[in-house]
Amino acid sequence: MNSPLITLLSDFGLRDGYAASMKGVILRICSRARIVDITHLIEPGEIRSGAFVLFTSYGCFPDNTIHVAVVDPGVGTSRRGIAIRSNSHFFVGPDNGIFSSVLEKETGWEARSLENSSFFHHPVSRTFHGRDIFAPVAAHLACGASFDQLGPVCTPMVPDWSAPLVLDGRIEGEIIHVDRFGNAITNVLRRTLEQQGKAQEWTLRVESAPNISILDTYDQAGPGKLLALTGSSGFMEVAVNQGNAASRLNLCPGTKVAFLLDG
Amino acid sequence: MNSPLITLLSDFGLRDGYAASMKGVILRICSRARIVDITHLIEPGEIRSGAFVLFTSYGCFPDNTIHVAVVDPGVGTSRRGIAIRSNSHFFVGPDNGIFSSVLEKETGWEARSLENSSFFHHPVSRTFHGRDIFAPVAAHLACGASFDQLGPVCTPMVPDWSAPLVLDGRIEGEIIHVDRFGNAITNVLRRTLEQQGKAQEWTLRVESAPNISILDTYDQAGPGKLLALTGSSGFMEVAVNQGNAASRLNLCPGTKVAFLLDG
Amino acid sequence: MNSPLITLLSDFGLRDGYAASMKGVILRICSRARIVDITHLIEPGEIRSGAFVLFTSYGCFPDNTIHVAVVDPGVGTSRRGIAIRSNSHFFVGPDNGIFSSVLEKETGWEARSLENSSFFHHPVSRTFHGRDIFAPVAAHLACGASFDQLGPVCTPMVPDWSAPLVLDGRIEGEIIHVDRFGNAITNVLRRTLEQQGKAQEWTLRVESAPNISILDTYDQAGPGKLLALTGSSGFMEVAVNQGNAASRLNLCPGTKVAFLLDG
Repeated sequence: MNSPLITLLSDFGLRDGYAASMKGVILRICSRARIVDITHLIEPGEIRSGAFVLFTSYGCFPDNTIHVAVVDPGVGTSRRGIAIRSNSHFFVGPDNGIFSSVLEKETGWEARSLENSSFFHHPVSRTFHGRDIFAPVAAHLACGASFDQLGPVCTPMVPDWSAPLVLDGRIEGEIIHVDRFGNAITNVLRRTLEQQGKAQEWTLRVESAPNISILDTYDQAGPGKLLALTGSSGFMEVAVNQGNAASRLNLCPGTKVAFLLDG
Repeated sequence: MNSPLITLLSDFGLRDGYAASMKGVILRICSRARIVDITHLIEPGEIRSGAFVLFTSYGCFPDNTIHVAVVDPGVGTSRRGIAIRSNSHFFVGPDNGIFSSVLEKETGWEARSLENSSFFHHPVSRTFHGRDIFAPVAAHLACGASFDQLGPVCTPMVPDWSAPLVLDGRIEGEIIHVDRFGNAITNVLRRTLEQQGKAQEWTLRVESAPNISILDTYDQAGPGKLLALTGSSGFMEVAVNQGNAASRLNLCPGTKVAFLLDG
Repeated sequence: MNSPLITLLSDFGLRDGYAASMKGVILRICSRARIVDITHLIEPGEIRSGAFVLFTSYGCFPDNTIHVAVVDPGVGTSRRGIAIRSNSHFFVGPDNGIFSSVLEKETGWEARSLENSSFFHHPVSRTFHGRDIFAPVAAHLACGASFDQLGPVCTPMVPDWSAPLVLDGRIEGEIIHVDRFGNAITNVLRRTLEQQGKAQEWTLRVESAPNISILDTYDQAGPGKLLALTGSSGFMEVAVNQGNAASRLNLCPGTKVAFLLDG
């Protein structure tokens, strides 16, 4: 008998019992599920950051893994719950853009609006859909519920931060995540830069810093010096060699950045 | 073959190897056990907070789950270790009130004093009963040890913070937990208020704030405004709409609160 | 069918998807592996601290557990990857001393240099060998790869902080870890002190404090008073009864300490 795999990502933190409640609900419904945390330390409400962390890690998991992502500042409003099935993975969470980065990469996907309440944990609270809707839906999927039963086909929303504005010689984007080491990741892919020139021909501007050069590795900048480079996920990021770029430049999700083509 | 489920709650933090040591001990004794963390980030020694977080999450887990809770400022003193079996769950930890909230909800329970040292991990240290007593007792229970063998029947202690003082038109309680978002949870249930009137007829007082109104949802208060409301666990909590109530009012476990019936 | 056990220790933090990526890679290769976190909150680059936390917890796990430890400030340089098999455990990680404490305790061990790239996750990045080398090597070991296939026999490096300098009446060591409660653990074992006298005949000096007495328990010092005592791992540590020694004395991994024999 197989052991279906469910990952969890949220902004619930690790101090309270929220993430554990989701796990309990899953195991009551599908006792053979195995659960892996991606993180529960997304900054509260930072959908961009959740979308990025999910994007960088989900692809390492086996096919048919079910990824539950709950960064959900709109809980209790009319925002929809959604499930997505692609050629290789499943995704469950609020329809607020948290899956937008993933969907640019996945192929053959289909989305359903979570309207079949027979898969919910009752009573459904107004504030904790992670426990009452998304975890039980994932558990039912893990233990054999048909994807088609979850609700009607729908189109996931596309948030405006999901792609930078690409102009001639200028790309306007924003910071989407700050990692543990203070590296500030932008929503601009290296390959987007390279459509107009070599990566090294661009410079990066943020309001709080002069032009930042694009280099290949941290140590091409002197110790304590600013640089931009390509992160392991393919997105351009702002870093300080042996230092913390986000605190130095006061960068956080939503900070505007611009790449300018030299010459 | 079934896979028994053990949850862990502690104030050991996640930086050291303490929680992992408990897991290792469990898996040496009962290799098929599955272990789920509730949290290890209870404020050091805050039994109230541990009791609350356990209370809010344990009920989501399947029947027969074994819940180990170790917030244990009295480790090394003569405080007793205890195991409790109710109609649906098991609990193992120090007898210091950490299970008091749970026991008000559970039915048909019986407690045993952990005196049978054949279930311990030897040598038993003076400072780490989580690893040496509570984890191995839970693992032996998970793999078939009889509850009755653990030690003699006993009566769990009832701490004075486990219930508020209910007077005519006045209920005196205290903060028992601050969650990640700065919401400060009291030990007063909504239904305790409602025994004397509607919830909205009460106001909440803390030393550091004027009268706080009881509302239904965060957004009934203006942005940045204080309110009290019913949390998902049924306890009244102090909150700020889009803000952090605990840091604004300097609330922490043990802070006194009073509910006053208007008119 | 058995479920091999893999533990993970790193400085990757819990906010990003790094630890989860390692888990995904493991489960793709060896779906029946069970994964337990020791910690991912080692201070970035603090090999000493990682070595200590691994040392204090790995021995609780069942025989044949595979311990992956990645505190790897030299990633991308020519430092070697290594796997070690002892009589009871396996270890996989960078060859930078992170296993040095463990190897002083383990017997019958043999080390291999990780040179067989058929066990790696390709393409191998320059910055994330946890995901691309150490996790997949551990997963292949868990699912039956022969230890001898990993690469040629090698000798693990021994860092200079792995042992204190023992003189006549004077032992010079350093802080190797600060735990959640602010206790600062040294690299000096109690039994090293006892080779020259009783533990109580020594005093501890750090630059920021007068002579610190060696006592048996926290409460032998008054509340708020400094003391040194033997930690649960056998190493001497600096503590404050009901307080935080590391912040009081500004102690961190690398801070020099000296034990002096009285009289």
